[in-house]
Amino acid sequence: MNAAKHSVAVIGLGSMGMGAARSCIRAGLNTYGVDINAEALQSLSSAGAAGVAADCAEFTAELDSVLLLVVNAEQCRRILFDNGLAENMLPGTAVMVSATMSADDAKDIAGRLAERQLIALDAPVSGGAAKADKGEMTVMASGPEEAFDKLAPVLDAIAVSVYRIGSEIGMGATVKIIHQLLAGVHIAVGAEAMAMAAKAGIPLDMMYEVVTNAAGNSWMFENRMKHVVDGDYSPKSMVDIFVKDMGLVTDVAQSLNFPIHLGSTAYQMFTSASNEGHGKEDDSAVIKIFKGLNLPEKS
Amino acid sequence: MNAAKHSVAVIGLGSMGMGAARSCIRAGLNTYGVDINAEALQSLSSAGAAGVAADCAEFTAELDSVLLLVVNAEQCRRILFDNGLAENMLPGTAVMVSATMSADDAKDIAGRLAERQLIALDAPVSGGAAKADKGEMTVMASGPEEAFDKLAPVLDAIAVSVYRIGSEIGMGATVKIIHQLLAGVHIAVGAEAMAMAAKAGIPLDMMYEVVTNAAGNSWMFENRMKHVVDGDYSPKSMVDIFVKDMGLVTDVAQSLNFPIHLGSTAYQMFTSASNEGHGKEDDSAVIKIFKGLNLPEKS
Repeated sequence: MNAAKHSVAVIGLGSMGMGAARSCIRAGLNTYGVDINAEALQSLSSAGAAGVAADCAEFTAELDSVLLLVVNAEQCRRILFDNGLAENMLPGTAVMVSATMSADDAKDIAGRLAERQLIALDAPVSGGAAKADKGEMTVMASGPEEAFDKLAPVLDAIAVSVYRIGSEIGMGATVKIIHQLLAGVHIAVGAEAMAMAAKAGIPLDMMYEVVTNAAGNSWMFENRMKHVVDGDYSPKSMVDIFVKDMGLVTDVAQSLNFPIHLGSTAYQMFTSASNEGHGKEDDSAVIKIFKGLNLPEKS
Repeated sequence: MNAAKHSVAVIGLGSMGMGAARSCIRAGLNTYGVDINAEALQSLSSAGAAGVAADCAEFTAELDSVLLLVVNAEQCRRILFDNGLAENMLPGTAVMVSATMSADDAKDIAGRLAERQLIALDAPVSGGAAKADKGEMTVMASGPEEAFDKLAPVLDAIAVSVYRIGSEIGMGATVKIIHQLLAGVHIAVGAEAMAMAAKAGIPLDMMYEVVTNAAGNSWMFENRMKHVVDGDYSPKSMVDIFVKDMGLVTDVAQSLNFPIHLGSTAYQMFTSASNEGHGKEDDSAVIKIFKGLNLPEKS
């Protein structure tokens, strides 16, 4: 191991985490991978990881930073505080917290890290697996200057855009939550519009083509309604992810005492889809809450 | 006048109609302009119109086609049937009906034209003033083959994309209505998200930059929320236009007996904005229904 090299542990080797870890290796960082999935560990090991394991124990003391790319705040807390990671990291190690969570959770985690002289960056990401794999994620981050400085090698390796929202922990989390409000409503209204077109007897491939070439388009409409046109609901991203995310949006709106007319409606639509048994299908399957339609079926 | 030239009257010289009429002139069509606005008539005359007037009376018999770019079905009916236009057109003249209206209205108008051996194309447009001016509108049209054939010179002159939705009158109208459902919800949720960001203390220019570079973006978010960032609510397109359009969306959904969870919510948001006195402001002013915020003000 080269002592001058930045050492990072990427915790959570799902589609985003694996891409981030590979990008760190490619950028020449001393990269460790942590997951409970043995196949993912093997894959990252072959890609040149300095070490892989089901937990950080054996390399905790060597780390300059940790990148947490897990599902939610609860997983972050379990890994950091219940499994002894925070306890064993050297003072001054930086933790990039990239799960989607509320500002309150981000502040709680950063506060508990600070008690141990560990530096937190509230840094949700977006971009999907393909961009993660190319080191082209978008990071919307907030935190102290020293956290950005300490994590600069990691941010350079994994992201094409790093938005510095502010110095206060929680602002990054909130920007991501508000982004998810938009993304969720865009998927749900895409489904509502395509369902209405089906009811009116408009060919859905024609409806899709008109919208994607006009002012009614959205990134999510173009990406997700293609699945409806193809009748392909194999999960790229599941309905239940948006049940979770819109639930978080609702929590944050509640803590701000702020009304979200469209967000709350979309939340109920995703929850209906999940309640009807479509939770593990692609999130475009939210269209299945509309009944009596002849939707395209996969050929 | 060259007898071999296609003669078209463009009725309604608003931002879209003026652009369409100029595009017809540029394409070498014998172009007449009709509006009650004398300034618009003068402007089109200078641009090379074959004739301009407050009504069609003096050139009705010379027309191969009429392009109706007025606000709604009621205006179309008044011009065609109450003011004597349909009565005086030669049998076989084609009428391109481009106002946003319900399928039922489009069928009613086409039926009444057919009684006089006039040919209708149900042909809503989109694209905005700038594209209209360049002859680059998008047309979503339905109707008989002969209507497309007869109007080919006009369609070629004004549009970059002509979507042939089907042969049945009303399908074009419905596609436009469903497009407006998407456009309206995208503006309203853009406002909801930016308002929530303001409440949470996120700088709106930062929120705008993150979203427009991520998967939460929509054409309308990018176009309209810029006005919020700039604090500029001078009307490019007014709140009241979306009160009208979302009302039409609601009518059509009702006649299809189809639920529009998000569309109906967005309709109430635009109606609230209008009810609070913002109807003549830019449609991004729907954000003003959210209170107690420090929104940017025009410098």
